Amino acid sequence: MTLEEKILARIKPSPEEKKKLEEVASELLEKVSKAARTLEVSDIIPKLVGSAARNTWISGTHDLDIFISFPADTSRDDLENNGLLIAREVAKEGENIEERYAEHPYLNMHYGGFDVDLVPCFAVDSASEIISAVDRTPFHNEFIKMAIPGREDDVLIMKQFMKGTGTYGSELRTQGFSGYLTELLTIHYGSFRNTLRNACNWKPGLTIDMLEHGSIKHKDPLVVIDPTDPKRNVAAALSMNQFARFIDAAREYTEEPTEEFFFPKQKKAMKDDEIIDMITSRRSSFVAICFTPPDLVDDILYPQLDKMEHSVRSLFEEYEFQVLNSGYWVNEEAMILIELTTSQLPLVKKHRGPPVWAYGHAKGFKDKYIGSDELFSLYLEDGFYVADIRRKFSTAKELLEGRMHHCSLGKHLGKAVESGFTVLENTDIAKINDPGFRRFLRKWEQGK
Amino acid sequence: MTLEEKILARIKPSPEEKKKLEEVASELLEKVSKAARTLEVSDIIPKLVGSAARNTWISGTHDLDIFISFPADTSRDDLENNGLLIAREVAKEGENIEERYAEHPYLNMHYGGFDVDLVPCFAVDSASEIISAVDRTPFHNEFIKMAIPGREDDVLIMKQFMKGTGTYGSELRTQGFSGYLTELLTIHYGSFRNTLRNACNWKPGLTIDMLEHGSIKHKDPLVVIDPTDPKRNVAAALSMNQFARFIDAAREYTEEPTEEFFFPKQKKAMKDDEIIDMITSRRSSFVAICFTPPDLVDDILYPQLDKMEHSVRSLFEEYEFQVLNSGYWVNEEAMILIELTTSQLPLVKKHRGPPVWAYGHAKGFKDKYIGSDELFSLYLEDGFYVADIRRKFSTAKELLEGRMHHCSLGKHLGKAVESGFTVLENTDIAKINDPGFRRFLRKWEQGK
Repeated sequence: MTLEEKILARIKPSPEEKKKLEEVASELLEKVSKAARTLEVSDIIPKLVGSAARNTWISGTHDLDIFISFPADTSRDDLENNGLLIAREVAKEGENIEERYAEHPYLNMHYGGFDVDLVPCFAVDSASEIISAVDRTPFHNEFIKMAIPGREDDVLIMKQFMKGTGTYGSELRTQGFSGYLTELLTIHYGSFRNTLRNACNWKPGLTIDMLEHGSIKHKDPLVVIDPTDPKRNVAAALSMNQFARFIDAAREYTEEPTEEFFFPKQKKAMKDDEIIDMITSRRSSFVAICFTPPDLVDDILYPQLDKMEHSVRSLFEEYEFQVLNSGYWVNEEAMILIELTTSQLPLVKKHRGPPVWAYGHAKGFKDKYIGSDELFSLYLEDGFYVADIRRKFSTAKELLEGRMHHCSLGKHLGKAVESGFTVLENTDIAKINDPGFRRFLRKWEQGK
Repeated sequence: MTLEEKILARIKPSPEEKKKLEEVASELLEKVSKAARTLEVSDIIPKLVGSAARNTWISGTHDLDIFISFPADTSRDDLENNGLLIAREVAKEGENIEERYAEHPYLNMHYGGFDVDLVPCFAVDSASEIISAVDRTPFHNEFIKMAIPGREDDVLIMKQFMKGTGTYGSELRTQGFSGYLTELLTIHYGSFRNTLRNACNWKPGLTIDMLEHGSIKHKDPLVVIDPTDPKRNVAAALSMNQFARFIDAAREYTEEPTEEFFFPKQKKAMKDDEIIDMITSRRSSFVAICFTPPDLVDDILYPQLDKMEHSVRSLFEEYEFQVLNSGYWVNEEAMILIELTTSQLPLVKKHRGPPVWAYGHAKGFKDKYIGSDELFSLYLEDGFYVADIRRKFSTAKELLEGRMHHCSLGKHLGKAVESGFTVLENTDIAKINDPGFRRFLRKWEQGK
């Protein structure tokens, strides 16, 4: 039994698990039709879409995507109203019912052990004519169902490999490979093995256009033209780093395949002495900005954390603190963690002024600084005036306390930070006991 | 009595001083002719050149430049041999006789209270046909003697202004304005006042071509075409910073003329507590490299000190120490003094490797660092491998001790440093008591 066969045995749904899913899916499709009749909404078609419909779901993931397809000439109001009416009728026998919003509202519920989405959509003629983003999904479904037979197992192994290497999922938190993208790559290269073999030599700008119908230039690291829409890059959400990480993982795996790639061991939380040792051995400065995170869905929270990390880095760089590394972590608390070469700059700061021959500016510069309290010295260097002046913020903590509120932050994190934050420095970060945080710190040991 | 009249009264030679100079000069010219006759060297012409010949010498400077002009068709050997024979004959009544070398040998001596140079040269037809660099001087002499009458006093004041502001002298130590350049500028602008007024608006690239015969493009900050040689820039030795300093001084003086510009007060040597206060208030790091200077003439010593200062700056920058300011000082001891933002860097250093898609290089990079003792962590950033590794030199002192001998140094200073140097840090520089050094440190207070 090869390694990949072993993995497959762990992740492929059993006949019983499949039968259960098919039964629940049938029940729900039937309920949608019935509800439409009860509510006198005609011409809708219920559809099972997603990995459940394509036989590419991993054992244990119990997601069902039920689409309620309305004729393309339905008004958006009618679709939203009637769609939700039908969904609510079906959901009468479900639990934890929640109305959620993408481009238009849909319903999420738990039913028969499954996490079910009931999503209204327009039955357009082709994926290039979609009215709402979700209208594309049924076309993806058709294409994959047509092209996948015989390669379902390879998709399962590929998905697990991506999960294990942290590259699976196109949501904003991960910026990795979507399920549809994974299926397309496996279809294109024919198998899990062949996909990895090819990925070893991927370079940014690679374009895969299975139907040779791509009609637009894309600038993303990887371009996979949607077989159902010549204008769309299925890999648009894939970040450069996830693209790179996948290439790196493919090479590592090709050289020495182990189970770890699919099921990595969870990192151990760093102990106090490990944290202290890590920080003191690097002799750099760690600065943590801690605050209470607002209650937000991942797709809103993570982009804002990302933005905050970049804003704080920029703030430090603007004030001449050199950033080595950074990251964020969020759980009950949230933290932006920055590693600086030093958190203490000299009080003196070189400020280059105009060249001597810019008479007017030169006069302004000298008038401003000569006799001022901020001035250490004023001299000429390469024909320019230079003033050695007093730095406004000479420690990282002072800078954060004085300028954090000038950082460009997302709406929700902006509010959260405004209502207060604390700064922890160096080994003081070991005051935080959350094991998730202490696993996050292993980032500073990667590859060792 | 205006300020400038007052200054002139201090620097203009008295009739007695002039008479003395003229007598000694006549005596020497006579002696040269006599020596030539005695030695049976025919066709030479003795000439008084330089500021003594042009009436542009400042009271108290007792320099006489006596040129011994040979026919242009004399061989270089004959010129050198016969020139020195004549000079030695004349020097029989002089003191402290020294053979010196420019392009060819000449004699320096003390005679009758004067510092006398006896210099053989070729009597070429024009300054553009010179055989040796000194052959140009008689042409300069002729031009100035023709154009200067009536402006001698302005030249005196201008020279004193340049001396006072540290911009006078074209030797390598100063890189300022030569005597000839000062005379030309004063002739061109007509007076001391008008030269300063114009200098306020000078910009790099300014070209003054009095005879409108310049035939070559020059890239120097200031271009003054030699009236006696259309290819030559008389201001070629002027550095950008001295050009800028003169402009700045001209403006300051124009705004508020004081005696200080001509006769600046000597700076006071810094006291211990002033040194300590200066260093601790800036909170930067001072690093001094001290060594025994070799016994060299200024024109060899200063360029090598300059080169050393630049080499040490480059060394620090190469190893990621940030240089704020630097300088050198030399007397019994020599020192390169560097001000760094910090003399202690973190032990960790970011080392960016190849992008992931450069397969071969990527493998080499990972093979080199993974498992190595130097590695803190290895990760991906923007598609590139980055290794956080151990820095080889994390303190300025370690770096100097480990890499100083790799610095590109001039021949003589290279040897001096090789035979040993010491490193002083921060307030330890107050261990050096030389008042010249303690005046040099005022550089860090300029303009206050």
